[in-house]
Amino acid sequence: MRALWLEGGELSLREDLPRPEPVAGEVRVAVRLAGICGTDLALARGYMGYAGIPGHEFVGVALEGALEGRRVVGEINAACGVCAPCGSGQPRHCSGRTVLGILGRGGAHAEVLSLPGENLHQVPDGVSDEQAVFVEPLAAAFEILEQVSVSGNTSVLVMGDGKLGLLCAQVLALRSSDVALAGRHGERVGMCAGVRSVGTAEQARASGEGWEVVVEATGDPSVIGIALACVRPLGTLVLKTTAEAGVPLDLAPLVVNEVTMVGSRCGPFEPALAALADNQIQVETLIETVESLQEGVSAYERARRSGTLKILLKMCPEDG
Amino acid sequence: MRALWLEGGELSLREDLPRPEPVAGEVRVAVRLAGICGTDLALARGYMGYAGIPGHEFVGVALEGALEGRRVVGEINAACGVCAPCGSGQPRHCSGRTVLGILGRGGAHAEVLSLPGENLHQVPDGVSDEQAVFVEPLAAAFEILEQVSVSGNTSVLVMGDGKLGLLCAQVLALRSSDVALAGRHGERVGMCAGVRSVGTAEQARASGEGWEVVVEATGDPSVIGIALACVRPLGTLVLKTTAEAGVPLDLAPLVVNEVTMVGSRCGPFEPALAALADNQIQVETLIETVESLQEGVSAYERARRSGTLKILLKMCPEDG
Repeated sequence: MRALWLEGGELSLREDLPRPEPVAGEVRVAVRLAGICGTDLALARGYMGYAGIPGHEFVGVALEGALEGRRVVGEINAACGVCAPCGSGQPRHCSGRTVLGILGRGGAHAEVLSLPGENLHQVPDGVSDEQAVFVEPLAAAFEILEQVSVSGNTSVLVMGDGKLGLLCAQVLALRSSDVALAGRHGERVGMCAGVRSVGTAEQARASGEGWEVVVEATGDPSVIGIALACVRPLGTLVLKTTAEAGVPLDLAPLVVNEVTMVGSRCGPFEPALAALADNQIQVETLIETVESLQEGVSAYERARRSGTLKILLKMCPEDG
Repeated sequence: MRALWLEGGELSLREDLPRPEPVAGEVRVAVRLAGICGTDLALARGYMGYAGIPGHEFVGVALEGALEGRRVVGEINAACGVCAPCGSGQPRHCSGRTVLGILGRGGAHAEVLSLPGENLHQVPDGVSDEQAVFVEPLAAAFEILEQVSVSGNTSVLVMGDGKLGLLCAQVLALRSSDVALAGRHGERVGMCAGVRSVGTAEQARASGEGWEVVVEATGDPSVIGIALACVRPLGTLVLKTTAEAGVPLDLAPLVVNEVTMVGSRCGPFEPALAALADNQIQVETLIETVESLQEGVSAYERARRSGTLKILLKMCPEDG
């Protein structure tokens, strides 16, 4: 089958890769549309030393099992089911997990992928492919609500008006009427109903305003210090950025102001699917362009450019 | 009066400093015994640019007010009473606060200090001066219990077997039967009833054991990365170390494992006083030596040496 292949920091298009073999308990999915995420770009730079097919944001059609023929999206962490985190109901933190396109499991930038059947969720008819492909990053934005208390008048600052920041701002605005967005593209606040712009990250810090909850979603770990300075005493800083390497960080403000810093990764698919079905979250405006899988290598190049929104890869399934 | 004086990174003994003036709402205290803390050593190296009398751990005798003639300890943050944090019951985070011996307020390494009357707590008769001088750092250890849920079987690792680490381990062992201590002085675990040693910080990491709660209390911000690696997925890392400058830190494990990092500073005096009165916490074993205020400069030098436990300064009050 056709897929992108990542190895030794080189991304290539391959036509000759084997389709995933049938595995008990797993379901193969013919990918229809897949997103390129900041993590994919980091992996392509060598993060985590991943070699294989990248990609973990997708919508496709199940080729077998109870959902055969149905459009599906899939949770990316495949759990062992027997370790301590699995036993305590936290399969996303399974110590032996594989992760689609990230860790030990070929990903979604391919014509076909395979995931455990329980990872798949059917896409409601009213949700288009172009919406459904955002379920995985949208779920990561909903994860914030699982971790941090946000309600009517909680003051929230989302730092970063890229793909993830714009999803986070929209999700947080479902709960709080006081959500601000900081970033380099002030006009993008218009994509987030009920959210106000506070200029760049530096301008947000210079304003001296303090927020109860700050979400760092720039993808740039050097911004964490600025984000920390924007948190009120006793407030919370949510990190959505997976840093690739250590950055110098002065944690004295965290200790002095007794700030809580929360690492936040993958999230629950159900509220993400429901929010898309109810048109509570706008995602089509986040699409920069749709390219074919054949153009995947150049699509990655384009995705690397600062300010680029979501680039999607469209597959031509063998059975399509 | 006699006091230590810190200015431009130089610590000196001064004989000619003015006694604190009477201030409405404040109470002057004749200091009997004061501790040298890691923060004092950091201030002497230039942290926060503090110029003045250092010292914030003390027991003394109130010279006026309702507690006149009584032995007292004192909370170190003097609040304005009108700002937003004060209005929300968080005077320790007052935005206009002064802090005894740290920020805009002369400290306890002096014959006399002054604090707002409401900051003072009477010391019960059964608590000696040598115990009471530990109330401030012990309260900082109790602060952890205000911030993090620790109960019967919570697995806890305290990293650092210096003064603060040994207090934290003892306090956490009041709540959990599964408290481990990591540090360079394995024998010190004997000072902490019910706590087991797991060797050095590096050995704790290498063990592959993961803890639900890890408390970083080494005073060395370069250890934060090791401490982070010891936290289980979805666990909590408590930072008691006030870093003086940024250190390179890879926060990817925090995001991937969805760890919560909690900054922890000053704490409640009541449980600390009660624990000392009930002999639940042993502090006298933490005393390295007691020096006179006149020997303060050399006492600071000694306190700087790695592995030194608590050095106390004994005052000879003008009225004593």
